[in-house]
Amino acid sequence: MTIKLYDLAAANPKIMFGPFSWRSRMALLHKGLDFEVVPWRWSDPNIGPKGLASVPVLHDGDNWIGDSWDIALYLDRQYPDKPTLMHGAEGQAAAQFVMSICGAMVFPGAIPAAVYQAYQILDETSKPLFRKSREEMFGCTLEAIHVGEEKGKAGLAAALVPFNETLASAPFLGGDSPTYADFALFGVLKWVDIVSSYRVIDDSSDVGKWFVRLENMYNGYARDVPTVRNTR
Amino acid sequence: MTIKLYDLAAANPKIMFGPFSWRSRMALLHKGLDFEVVPWRWSDPNIGPKGLASVPVLHDGDNWIGDSWDIALYLDRQYPDKPTLMHGAEGQAAAQFVMSICGAMVFPGAIPAAVYQAYQILDETSKPLFRKSREEMFGCTLEAIHVGEEKGKAGLAAALVPFNETLASAPFLGGDSPTYADFALFGVLKWVDIVSSYRVIDDSSDVGKWFVRLENMYNGYARDVPTVRNTR
Repeated sequence: MTIKLYDLAAANPKIMFGPFSWRSRMALLHKGLDFEVVPWRWSDPNIGPKGLASVPVLHDGDNWIGDSWDIALYLDRQYPDKPTLMHGAEGQAAAQFVMSICGAMVFPGAIPAAVYQAYQILDETSKPLFRKSREEMFGCTLEAIHVGEEKGKAGLAAALVPFNETLASAPFLGGDSPTYADFALFGVLKWVDIVSSYRVIDDSSDVGKWFVRLENMYNGYARDVPTVRNTR
Repeated sequence: MTIKLYDLAAANPKIMFGPFSWRSRMALLHKGLDFEVVPWRWSDPNIGPKGLASVPVLHDGDNWIGDSWDIALYLDRQYPDKPTLMHGAEGQAAAQFVMSICGAMVFPGAIPAAVYQAYQILDETSKPLFRKSREEMFGCTLEAIHVGEEKGKAGLAAALVPFNETLASAPFLGGDSPTYADFALFGVLKWVDIVSSYRVIDDSSDVGKWFVRLENMYNGYARDVPTVRNTR
């Protein structure tokens, strides 16, 4: 049975953009596993026998796994003969640290550009659920958080400065080839990229070049997915 | 001939506190190499035949190496049979990223607590040189940057949030044992710790516990060095 990955879908179910689900997608691609992405909406029922309430959810045989980090650990454990996402405790700590920095810097830098645009592409039933959840989380309206193109690009670029520095000296956060540390950041940026009416990422920066490098890997999987811009 | 490491010294030459030199010290300890620390002051001449103008400088046989990162790479290259500081390109990228985050977050969080206190312990000849250099760098006086104990602790704690998250799930940034990623952060914190009249680091936090763990390693080397507090 093919592995199934549940991802957050827009009104147009071909557009799927969950930042954490994108970490899992890239992990599945890296390991060379066949998988199918299942669109899931905020208004859909909880997922699987455990009633998991948020994506990603991985369904592999009898295993239902929520939470992208648990999915990554599961994939390395379950498929040790496939390419490794993280090399032992050292690789896990490095990926954890990138996730921590994403939480502290990259999400805060990306949310003003992305979250209202993400809201706008949802189906009408999901919209009020998403709005309520996010406005409680941020303590203000989606409209109050939202910024336009110029500020959106600048805010994200500022948050990516330390990543640019590292990626100026190595092609990947994982060194010579990508690891889950790369997918942790990529997921956040692919989310912004998919939902935004403009290209948020500066392709001339070191992060931008790295982003394109990852988009082109795995037969251009991430490059070729439906986005707000290419499905207009 | 014993390896020599030049480090920044206070008026009391036993107090040596360069943040980048501390990265190199921990690297030398981790590799189990014998070394001697040479106190260097801002008013001292440039170091070695290359006239290196800032510490750390490593003098090993015929080799004079400035810059803590170059020293780390040198040590792994020159002493491959000793414990490794970084495991290949993956470990180098992970350490680079921690250094980038130190530059973007930890130094800015630590400088208000540390820099004026560091200035105050310098010898009288070095003081004006240090003041001029730092005030040009920051664009304001040392007194304007300086904050007291409460704000000093809070500013550093805020910058360390993502590190706490990672160190809650692994004993070291390098995973099960320390790597140069750990020493990169440790150097910044040991600098603040040595020059400050109070304990800046919250020993009950995950970073604090990790800091004490590293202080106690290598026969308590970092724990037992002279500081402003224990030489009063």
